[in-house]
Amino acid sequence: MEASSQFASVRNLRIVLVGTQHPGNIGSAARAMKTMGLSSLVLVAPEKAPDRDTHAMAAGADDLVETAPIFATLAEAVADCRWVLGCTARSRRIQLEPLNPRDAARRATAAAVGGPVALVFGRERSGLDNVEMALCNAAVHIPSDPEFSSLNLAAAVQVLSYELRCAMLEGLPAAAIGDPAPRTPPADAQTATHAQLEGLFEHLAVTLEAIDFHKGRAPESALRKLRRLYLRANLDAAEVRLLHGILADSERMARLAGSHTTRDEIL
Amino acid sequence: MEASSQFASVRNLRIVLVGTQHPGNIGSAARAMKTMGLSSLVLVAPEKAPDRDTHAMAAGADDLVETAPIFATLAEAVADCRWVLGCTARSRRIQLEPLNPRDAARRATAAAVGGPVALVFGRERSGLDNVEMALCNAAVHIPSDPEFSSLNLAAAVQVLSYELRCAMLEGLPAAAIGDPAPRTPPADAQTATHAQLEGLFEHLAVTLEAIDFHKGRAPESALRKLRRLYLRANLDAAEVRLLHGILADSERMARLAGSHTTRDEIL
Repeated sequence: MEASSQFASVRNLRIVLVGTQHPGNIGSAARAMKTMGLSSLVLVAPEKAPDRDTHAMAAGADDLVETAPIFATLAEAVADCRWVLGCTARSRRIQLEPLNPRDAARRATAAAVGGPVALVFGRERSGLDNVEMALCNAAVHIPSDPEFSSLNLAAAVQVLSYELRCAMLEGLPAAAIGDPAPRTPPADAQTATHAQLEGLFEHLAVTLEAIDFHKGRAPESALRKLRRLYLRANLDAAEVRLLHGILADSERMARLAGSHTTRDEIL
Repeated sequence: MEASSQFASVRNLRIVLVGTQHPGNIGSAARAMKTMGLSSLVLVAPEKAPDRDTHAMAAGADDLVETAPIFATLAEAVADCRWVLGCTARSRRIQLEPLNPRDAARRATAAAVGGPVALVFGRERSGLDNVEMALCNAAVHIPSDPEFSSLNLAAAVQVLSYELRCAMLEGLPAAAIGDPAPRTPPADAQTATHAQLEGLFEHLAVTLEAIDFHKGRAPESALRKLRRLYLRANLDAAEVRLLHGILADSERMARLAGSHTTRDEIL
């Protein structure tokens, strides 16, 4: 099963590379797309046709390059699109208010439910020209450091593809997501119950007495700190058992030490 | 004005590359960092020292490579860090619950207000080994397509650096961060350093031997579980001292018990 098939609209998310100068960059961009589950690549008037460099850089994403249609103009490449987003290196004198990648990706994935959507990347040196920008419904700008904003083409495609994937994952119920769901603790069933935790805290209190930890100080402060620490750690049941085991052995040592001491005193 | 200077804590955000195999990738990673305003690069035992390939790929980010310290082990590279985040290609057998890049970046930038924070990237082929992952407080996983998850090193650094920059631009106060019940609260100024934590783990190992906790079993499994538990809990320095105190008293009891036992045997 193709993993990306979980996203019904993924085929409507089209990455368009305009006037790419280095064939290797077409391959790197294809690889960046494919890692994020995108598959629809379109080329507009590349300076050189895809070649060995392209495939070397594609590193397994060759299928995207091989099936990529090549158009002479951007207008033709986006003729069937319902939303076109131009990626701009800098918000020089463009008329469009640039979106940030996150908002752009959310809008693009929403729009892709209704039909093809294009994310358009310009030439390595000069980006998109004014005629091309005029075809775009909106602009997107990656918030690079103004002092060093030279993202290469593949890096820009990587960032936007990543945001598209995040936007698609956001739209899914948690159960449908292939990756580990990061917001959900992994083993709720194993998480210690509060009764188990209270049992641990009682054992801790007894053991600290046994090993003479407090040495005349009131025990409350240390016990409160330990409680806070272990509650914060979200212990699972196995960890509670492990800590019980350590406490039991510490107590055993204290008993041995104490019984000897007592006997010594008696003797 | 250096643009990144708008973020007071940016120098505390350290990118650590472990065992990098291709020097060119060190340059690409430096470039990816610099486009996002990051400047602190650290290398751990690269297979080859930075060379011409490195500088060719750095494309203007050479300063990051030239000032990058090189350490023999990851432990040394993160000794002064208060939060260490390991980037994992897939959540195969790692014990840590992986964060997504967005949550990880928000927590990292919040933690960086209090001290150095490391984002650790492993080898191109094999990632981080188990000993290295054991040094991490948390894991981060880029949600790539499970069918084609071969992000290259620079692409992974680009995505995480981008999220770090977004998190800095958001300027979120620490209180507003993360999910409802964060398992790993952001570090603050009191958070134990990794050197302090390693000291605690060594003391734990010695004490478990002393109290005869293992009883013939190999000690590694218990120590690994305890390490995971305490790393997850983000101990502060006072808590580390408290635990040292408990261990010291347990050891003292074991010594007393042992000396008596020996004397009993002699008698």
